[in-house]
Amino acid sequence: MAGNSFGKALVATTFGESHGAALGCVVDGCPAGIELAVEHIQAQLDRRRPGQNRYQSQRHEGDRARILSGVYQGLTLGTPIAVLVESADAKSGDYKDLADHYRPGHADFTWDQRFGRRDPRGGGRASARETVGRVAAGAIAEAVLAAWAKRNNTEPIQIIAWVQQVGEVVAQGPAPAQILPGQTGGYAFDPLTLTREQVDASPLRCPDGQAHARMQEQVELAQSERDSLGGVVRCVVRGLPAGWGEPVFDKLTGMLGHALLSLPAARGVQFGTGFAAAGMRGSVHNDAFLPGFHFASNHHGGVLGGISSGAPLVLDVAFKPVATIPQPQQGSTSQGAVAERTVTGRHDPCVVPRAVPIVEAAVAFVLADAVLGASLVKGDA
Amino acid sequence: MAGNSFGKALVATTFGESHGAALGCVVDGCPAGIELAVEHIQAQLDRRRPGQNRYQSQRHEGDRARILSGVYQGLTLGTPIAVLVESADAKSGDYKDLADHYRPGHADFTWDQRFGRRDPRGGGRASARETVGRVAAGAIAEAVLAAWAKRNNTEPIQIIAWVQQVGEVVAQGPAPAQILPGQTGGYAFDPLTLTREQVDASPLRCPDGQAHARMQEQVELAQSERDSLGGVVRCVVRGLPAGWGEPVFDKLTGMLGHALLSLPAARGVQFGTGFAAAGMRGSVHNDAFLPGFHFASNHHGGVLGGISSGAPLVLDVAFKPVATIPQPQQGSTSQGAVAERTVTGRHDPCVVPRAVPIVEAAVAFVLADAVLGASLVKGDA
Amino acid sequence: MAGNSFGKALVATTFGESHGAALGCVVDGCPAGIELAVEHIQAQLDRRRPGQNRYQSQRHEGDRARILSGVYQGLTLGTPIAVLVESADAKSGDYKDLADHYRPGHADFTWDQRFGRRDPRGGGRASARETVGRVAAGAIAEAVLAAWAKRNNTEPIQIIAWVQQVGEVVAQGPAPAQILPGQTGGYAFDPLTLTREQVDASPLRCPDGQAHARMQEQVELAQSERDSLGGVVRCVVRGLPAGWGEPVFDKLTGMLGHALLSLPAARGVQFGTGFAAAGMRGSVHNDAFLPGFHFASNHHGGVLGGISSGAPLVLDVAFKPVATIPQPQQGSTSQGAVAERTVTGRHDPCVVPRAVPIVEAAVAFVLADAVLGASLVKGDA
Amino acid sequence: MAGNSFGKALVATTFGESHGAALGCVVDGCPAGIELAVEHIQAQLDRRRPGQNRYQSQRHEGDRARILSGVYQGLTLGTPIAVLVESADAKSGDYKDLADHYRPGHADFTWDQRFGRRDPRGGGRASARETVGRVAAGAIAEAVLAAWAKRNNTEPIQIIAWVQQVGEVVAQGPAPAQILPGQTGGYAFDPLTLTREQVDASPLRCPDGQAHARMQEQVELAQSERDSLGGVVRCVVRGLPAGWGEPVFDKLTGMLGHALLSLPAARGVQFGTGFAAAGMRGSVHNDAFLPGFHFASNHHGGVLGGISSGAPLVLDVAFKPVATIPQPQQGSTSQGAVAERTVTGRHDPCVVPRAVPIVEAAVAFVLADAVLGASLVKGDA
Repeated sequence: MAGNSFGKALVATTFGESHGAALGCVVDGCPAGIELAVEHIQAQLDRRRPGQNRYQSQRHEGDRARILSGVYQGLTLGTPIAVLVESADAKSGDYKDLADHYRPGHADFTWDQRFGRRDPRGGGRASARETVGRVAAGAIAEAVLAAWAKRNNTEPIQIIAWVQQVGEVVAQGPAPAQILPGQTGGYAFDPLTLTREQVDASPLRCPDGQAHARMQEQVELAQSERDSLGGVVRCVVRGLPAGWGEPVFDKLTGMLGHALLSLPAARGVQFGTGFAAAGMRGSVHNDAFLPGFHFASNHHGGVLGGISSGAPLVLDVAFKPVATIPQPQQGSTSQGAVAERTVTGRHDPCVVPRAVPIVEAAVAFVLADAVLGASLVKGDA
Repeated sequence: MAGNSFGKALVATTFGESHGAALGCVVDGCPAGIELAVEHIQAQLDRRRPGQNRYQSQRHEGDRARILSGVYQGLTLGTPIAVLVESADAKSGDYKDLADHYRPGHADFTWDQRFGRRDPRGGGRASARETVGRVAAGAIAEAVLAAWAKRNNTEPIQIIAWVQQVGEVVAQGPAPAQILPGQTGGYAFDPLTLTREQVDASPLRCPDGQAHARMQEQVELAQSERDSLGGVVRCVVRGLPAGWGEPVFDKLTGMLGHALLSLPAARGVQFGTGFAAAGMRGSVHNDAFLPGFHFASNHHGGVLGGISSGAPLVLDVAFKPVATIPQPQQGSTSQGAVAERTVTGRHDPCVVPRAVPIVEAAVAFVLADAVLGASLVKGDA
Repeated sequence: MAGNSFGKALVATTFGESHGAALGCVVDGCPAGIELAVEHIQAQLDRRRPGQNRYQSQRHEGDRARILSGVYQGLTLGTPIAVLVESADAKSGDYKDLADHYRPGHADFTWDQRFGRRDPRGGGRASARETVGRVAAGAIAEAVLAAWAKRNNTEPIQIIAWVQQVGEVVAQGPAPAQILPGQTGGYAFDPLTLTREQVDASPLRCPDGQAHARMQEQVELAQSERDSLGGVVRCVVRGLPAGWGEPVFDKLTGMLGHALLSLPAARGVQFGTGFAAAGMRGSVHNDAFLPGFHFASNHHGGVLGGISSGAPLVLDVAFKPVATIPQPQQGSTSQGAVAERTVTGRHDPCVVPRAVPIVEAAVAFVLADAVLGASLVKGDA
Repeated sequence: MAGNSFGKALVATTFGESHGAALGCVVDGCPAGIELAVEHIQAQLDRRRPGQNRYQSQRHEGDRARILSGVYQGLTLGTPIAVLVESADAKSGDYKDLADHYRPGHADFTWDQRFGRRDPRGGGRASARETVGRVAAGAIAEAVLAAWAKRNNTEPIQIIAWVQQVGEVVAQGPAPAQILPGQTGGYAFDPLTLTREQVDASPLRCPDGQAHARMQEQVELAQSERDSLGGVVRCVVRGLPAGWGEPVFDKLTGMLGHALLSLPAARGVQFGTGFAAAGMRGSVHNDAFLPGFHFASNHHGGVLGGISSGAPLVLDVAFKPVATIPQPQQGSTSQGAVAERTVTGRHDPCVVPRAVPIVEAAVAFVLADAVLGASLVKGDA
């Protein structure tokens, strides 16, 4: 099945193997007349790129994006926007001996079961490097959102993600239910004013300085012990108007769940109070209305019945620890024999900071898709 | 945007408002020659139906399903299968005064923001009653899975869900990482042999008797206090072969996330060890291979890189407490004024037991869609 | 493959076998707030219905449509609109002996090759009776177009089809290139003022009285000789604004070609001057501009580069003669032996008049889909 | 609306403006393990390329294709196949003054109406140069068809198109109804043995030598008179098994109609006897069965009820004369004032020979999509 496209009104198709000639995306359905500069795409790609600091894989890819189509004189044409990132620094030799080896925690085995063959170089298309296309598409989606807000004279829609947890260390910001104007003061950071620059100011992209220090310790300890750590990325969307999303299968929660749980290494997604809501009573979880369609709390995380409520969207994505660790692991041969091996190559001890722009891209894409689709079925049609 | 269809190779389109003339679905893409009896659909609809016990809404709808097309002489034709459930017991009068009232925790407000108007009778299409169509589609999907296993002479693919948590009470079965043959003994119940009959034997559909007793207490307490409780449904798929699913956007995790996070009241989804994986190290989380493509543990919950591994699929869905509770709640008028009101009507104090067949239906549909799509791109094409 | 849906922003899914319990459609993506009465759907179904006059199959089905969902208080809700037509007068006995017989010119053989089995009663889903769902969907699409014109204060978009040819008799209206305001006078009829009532005034739905008389002779002669006749339906759309349609795969011509060449018995489609354009020079075929974006001629039939030009849309659909004729025909057994047989049952000697509302429905659906989709990518986004 | 993709099981997304940085396509859904060489793609691109002979536009683009992804060691991976053709010889200066001029017969005006802006260089994405992506996708589809035949040990599926008509000159091959084994002898050429090499042996790609000579005269005359000519491409598919295609909206005729009527300059499509069938009686048009599911004639052109019958597929596509001619034409300014202008640039006097590989590509793509989708719903599921 053709499964490399995402979206309905706005459709991103991504392509490319980790060590192939290039990766990229084609975004179709973008309206005409939207300002789009390659620099905006590049900025998010740079945040995703390996080698940004000492905790990350030392592959210096560069990941230079080119816009091949769909933009003329700085404005979109309404035609497909193709973005290409050609590969520069592929050391395929590192992986050659993996052609017959299935690493634990990797897709090597399942991919072979699915397709009968695979590109073993750098994990092929099962590599997290496939998110290059997702991030480029997300940057285009952000341009759509910016144009929408400008046209409608509303405040900008800002999508900010950060590292909320690494290993067992959790950042001490406000709980999702408190992420509402006027309730976010007095915490280690304020999700309603946080900027990407502030997030990027710390190597692990955690805006809680004390937590960050402990996260660093944990990552360095894991690294020294040739191990890896998982974590959680939290994302907040500010300025999202009420009324976005579809009510049945394509609820914002459903579409975001699709986009986020298809990210490499993602193991869970929750909205607002999330899993903790299971333990609550309705009288506590229900967010009372305040005058003017405001809310007294934000357990619902900005989505009611699949449609945005005007409160900040709040969601979490859990990522497992990176599977490739430089210590012996019990894998399998393609014949089903157990094979212990230490896999070398370039890998991060903790991938979660690099997941921040990827989560933002997924959220941006879902929202842009929703608003472009929503324009179809407004009540005043 | 047309958002009432789900699936790619197998597509379900659902329709119907809670108190409208009928609800139903059309399932397109079902292969020809598959045994399909209306009784199979009816059985799952009966499990979803309100009024099954004292903890549930006393609406006695009946929900009788008719197959209108696509089946001839007990076998599918390869043409669309339309299933219709006509409404019988709609007491619209109960809801008439809600036309101008937005209940907290409901989609009333967001729906109006989205569409400019809505059907206020019983929540219209925002009612959980829309899942009638999903459950019918899931039953058809199960027939597809049964036919697949029969044709391929493999063990049946069994999808079993149960209530894992109600309020703060958690059933004591094996952890997801232990849900593997040979590891599930010694617990309150065994997810690898559990049957739907066993699940249904307790009113709250929790197979851990001790936990069930405490859950009952909690539900009765909440009910007596005019309140409601949330919970978690866990689902296991047994007999799922390796190699199902797509590697990028349409990972099993992504498609399941889409289907499950679009269920009414769903607030989170996790696979295998899920959110707890964020706190782990790679050396712990990685599931070592055993001979013959078996695994020493199941942290990955049966999905690696979006594709099934042959280990049991394990996932959790968190549901918030039912929003409608028979006590005063602070809602809003359509003009934005706060309006406290006690909403009457028929509602469950805990919806989670009825979510069990709905989760099974969503999982069945995603798997049937995956296998029908997967036949396209096997390596031996 | 799920192939029973059509459209992108507006999606119609149809279902039903000729002699099954019911036929119908679900239309998803219709905006909220549009006036929709079942009578409008019924009116077009009545025009499609057999038994309207002596040239048509005497099946008195009635074809009573019910709207099951998506409409509340006379206005659409933005939710899926399900329309159901239950079967009343199915004489399955007439067809029972066809289970092992492949009729020439029918889909019996190819259907069995495709699906391995079929519903032989009345042709099952290969019967032209499947167009019930298409016509209902087309009527909904016309309501969308009416709402669009009303909201935009433009003239109504009128879709008028008629029988342009039966056998070798051709109606003498203006050539497509002349179907422009001010150029259609002096012909047997005027496509720019013709109404559906005028078209229906003649049994064969041909507005050229002289041609109609000769067509009647031809049909009666064919009927008396136990034979059938093909024909051509021409369709004109008036009031279609410029700028509708997509430029590449989803050109209006492509989408209309898809919708129209998927109609039962359709063998060809052409736009404007059509096949005759192949014999022309560019200097003749190019339609010169007049002031105010008007055109001196309409060889292009209202579509340039796949997008509407503001000139009337003009297209033709060729239908083959009805395959079932009450005389011996050389068919096949399912084992491949030649079998001569006279097939009885209820069939029209000339199906083309009943194709008129079906063509209108297909055109209406494509246009409504185009305008709902087009709102997404206007230059002012 | 995202309208730059085509297909369901196999999906081609194309991108690129005529004088932009590059054109190309991404093909998703191609099975793994299929032999695919860039040379095969290049071969068809070379046949589409301008500048092949004196009747064609003298743009020497080269059109060198690169496969960027989805192929490893000569075999497909089951991942998206991106094909890129970078632009080399773009003389944008030729077109600069067209930014405010709408040429008659072109999409300049309608494109502006649709999107509010456009890329005027070489027609932007409205240029027939967009078919580069279609041709590359078609070549990949041919690889799919070749793999299918090889795996099923059937004869190869051969798609052969040629120029059947230029201006008023028509090639004298057998009528569609005679394009059946044993009936094609005694004509100027035999569609059942014709090769692409034979088609390419004549500059105008017409295999009837006498007709070709007269076509050449007509083209040279038109060229000398600064004019252009239209024509018809006929396409035959040999070796197509019975049972391909879907029965309702996605009939082979519907999907082919979509693909072919979305080609630049296409004005009509017909199957088998096509428009001439409208003038026939059923007793003549019905193709009698012969033993073994063979047919006595091929009026149906290889498709019955939308599904292939095993007889050769026969279809015609009518193309209008090229709109750009080097003589004064009455266009419009963007303000609606008439503007007579002689547009210069590089254009063919007759585009039909270059349409031959484009038609083949469209047909190949529809067939590959059909067979990949059809594997889903075979009766033996």
